[in-house]
Amino acid sequence: MSTITRVRVHDVRFPTSRTLDGSDAMNKDGDYSAAYVVLGTDAAGPDGEPLTGYGFTFTIGRGNDLCVEAARQRALPLVGRDVDEALDDLGAVYRELAADSQLRWLGPEKGVVHLAMAAVMNALWDMAARRAGKPLWRMLVDMTPEQLVDVADLRYLSDALTREEALAILRAAEPTRAMRIADLEARGGYPCYTTSAGWLGYSDDKLRRLLAEAIDEGYRHVKLKVGADLAEDVRRLTIAREVIGWDAALMIDANQVWDVPQAIMWMEHLAPFRPLWIEEPTSPDDVLGHAAIRRAVAPVGVASGEHGMNRVLFKQMFQAQALDFCQLDSARLASVNEILAVYLMAAKFGVPVCPHAGGVGLCELVQHLSILDYIAISTSLENRVTEFVDHLHEHFTDPCVVVDGHYTLPTAPGYSARMHPDSVAAFSYPDGAEWRS
Amino acid sequence: MSTITRVRVHDVRFPTSRTLDGSDAMNKDGDYSAAYVVLGTDAAGPDGEPLTGYGFTFTIGRGNDLCVEAARQRALPLVGRDVDEALDDLGAVYRELAADSQLRWLGPEKGVVHLAMAAVMNALWDMAARRAGKPLWRMLVDMTPEQLVDVADLRYLSDALTREEALAILRAAEPTRAMRIADLEARGGYPCYTTSAGWLGYSDDKLRRLLAEAIDEGYRHVKLKVGADLAEDVRRLTIAREVIGWDAALMIDANQVWDVPQAIMWMEHLAPFRPLWIEEPTSPDDVLGHAAIRRAVAPVGVASGEHGMNRVLFKQMFQAQALDFCQLDSARLASVNEILAVYLMAAKFGVPVCPHAGGVGLCELVQHLSILDYIAISTSLENRVTEFVDHLHEHFTDPCVVVDGHYTLPTAPGYSARMHPDSVAAFSYPDGAEWRS
Repeated sequence: MSTITRVRVHDVRFPTSRTLDGSDAMNKDGDYSAAYVVLGTDAAGPDGEPLTGYGFTFTIGRGNDLCVEAARQRALPLVGRDVDEALDDLGAVYRELAADSQLRWLGPEKGVVHLAMAAVMNALWDMAARRAGKPLWRMLVDMTPEQLVDVADLRYLSDALTREEALAILRAAEPTRAMRIADLEARGGYPCYTTSAGWLGYSDDKLRRLLAEAIDEGYRHVKLKVGADLAEDVRRLTIAREVIGWDAALMIDANQVWDVPQAIMWMEHLAPFRPLWIEEPTSPDDVLGHAAIRRAVAPVGVASGEHGMNRVLFKQMFQAQALDFCQLDSARLASVNEILAVYLMAAKFGVPVCPHAGGVGLCELVQHLSILDYIAISTSLENRVTEFVDHLHEHFTDPCVVVDGHYTLPTAPGYSARMHPDSVAAFSYPDGAEWRS
Repeated sequence: MSTITRVRVHDVRFPTSRTLDGSDAMNKDGDYSAAYVVLGTDAAGPDGEPLTGYGFTFTIGRGNDLCVEAARQRALPLVGRDVDEALDDLGAVYRELAADSQLRWLGPEKGVVHLAMAAVMNALWDMAARRAGKPLWRMLVDMTPEQLVDVADLRYLSDALTREEALAILRAAEPTRAMRIADLEARGGYPCYTTSAGWLGYSDDKLRRLLAEAIDEGYRHVKLKVGADLAEDVRRLTIAREVIGWDAALMIDANQVWDVPQAIMWMEHLAPFRPLWIEEPTSPDDVLGHAAIRRAVAPVGVASGEHGMNRVLFKQMFQAQALDFCQLDSARLASVNEILAVYLMAAKFGVPVCPHAGGVGLCELVQHLSILDYIAISTSLENRVTEFVDHLHEHFTDPCVVVDGHYTLPTAPGYSARMHPDSVAAFSYPDGAEWRS
């Protein structure tokens, strides 16, 4: 019998605020950070090294230490567990960790303790895929509909999605899974768009140059940040349409800065630029507000989800017809267990999922999820495009590879969540070399 | 000039799980705890001692340390501030602390970082009332409608409550404030109900005895925990009606254990006991779920709010007509600034607020809020009754005083939030005497 022997959680922070990478109307100076979980075992991995699981949640700096400590507390009950028993039933492990009523009080299922749950479960899913010798997406599409539903967290969802409905969605897709794997391979992967051009802190010249580069690199979708100043937004969107033309899709993102009536007013002025969507027009908690905005700004779509705190919020977003695009976050929702539930609801309600990415490592995770969605859940690429931001990939041992606007299919075992040990050491906060200097 | 000189945050935990005080269907073994903030200054207080502010948020044990550290980080920007400048504009201080975009990412406005915001702002409001030499409720009802609206956090609410509407509510109540103060004094305080009888872990004999005592003590409302086992619930509610009769009001509380269809089914069996309300029938995040349950279980009322994460959730609860009773929590919402906004929305939508209390110190806080509501906001006592649980008051220097089912009006300066230094020392976790033994 092999056991989980060790939990280490690292406070890793990248000083991105120095260059205004990632700047938007709400988040002016984030330091992209990870509460990075390493679960050690005394089991032999497929490569002869000890089997290990790597996972993280994403933050933008201060308070990353809170997630580190919360993840440590979440993971401690795992130490001493039988590796195979845990990995063979990640639904049971998830339910057990989620049932800690004292930690639950601090959410429930939201904020720091839920981000910590994401980090720990991400590490367990990574470990499971490494044990299987498969990339996570492949391990998941090799599971039966029953196995997938058993690990999904369907609590509080039965008024919107029953277990039987979830099974029916997965069973309908099952016979044709192989066809869609072949299709993705033929296309060169899963389609993505880039946000790298459009940060609010960039100059007009840099904006113009980055947009032109994005089109040259094969992207058909680009995204710009808006919401700080209306005249500025009009000017920058004018530049954007000059550079990318009117055939490429333009998305805009307000990062929660508006009240509901203000969002509707502002969008009257930005609608002439024909954005595909307005992202995070108001508080991410405001289901009814998003629904009201959506009714007012159509045919511009409404997108939200990177701050979608849990599956209960997404359930209501679907029930209220509040979203045209669901942008779930792989490090805010509690890993595959909760994300599966959101994908299944999205499929039932016919809402395309275009996951949030960027930050640090989110692209590495979401490629697996988008691929899973196409192969085994929604079976569609229509209106689906996954975010890609070209930052910080060099710190991962199995970085995502984007070619011609597509995430190529990951092939290495795991959830692509492992960072280079040198990066972890150098960017550890506050004692790593990059922070001491 | 006097300045805020010092932030101390204490991890205070009471081992309530040893006696099953506070046990319910979701929270079987809570250790009632406080992340307890002490803000020191070099200003002279009215009593000659240095002016100090005391505040806290409430948790049930593990993870209280996360709130302690988050509160410390939230409060650090206050050190070195001019005391009068800060206390003269607590709206500005609130907005500044809330605008920390890096900490905001961890919510936003929910979970650990929001509980920490509550603790810190509670300490500032306590300090402001001590400086004024008044109990908090009195300081608040001595403020003008404009001053109250200026400190209220109305962000994201303008589709439900404009600043002008908020002012109109407060102005309508202003001329008759003195009359209602006199009315409360004549009645012996603000009406309350007791939960002390109904914890799930208590035996039938203890339940019967405590219910009889409650009626003898003058309570006209009692509350029981339900939701773990339907046959048990029927048996315990039968006992309750035998003891209290059919004239006293009986409330029941499921503490979030049900899915929406399950709540509706379960309540078909409990409705014959004519409960005034079913509290927390499902996930506290589920606005549309509460609305569906409310439509199904009427005339039984639906109550929720102790886990209501922020004002945006309550806005939607009101917009969706999801609640008959709003049970906001004084240590989960971000203190007076956010609580005022919820009371003002409740007044506009005609929903009575019956605050959650119990835990440790929540009764001490909410008495001030209920009194404020009656005098300056809703102007009504109809369908309003504030929770009271007779636990842990001995640890406070100005404990609430309940006589004949009423909170008597606090008279000491402050927000009644100060604990005895000996209690803080003895119950500090993990090194206090009570935890070492």
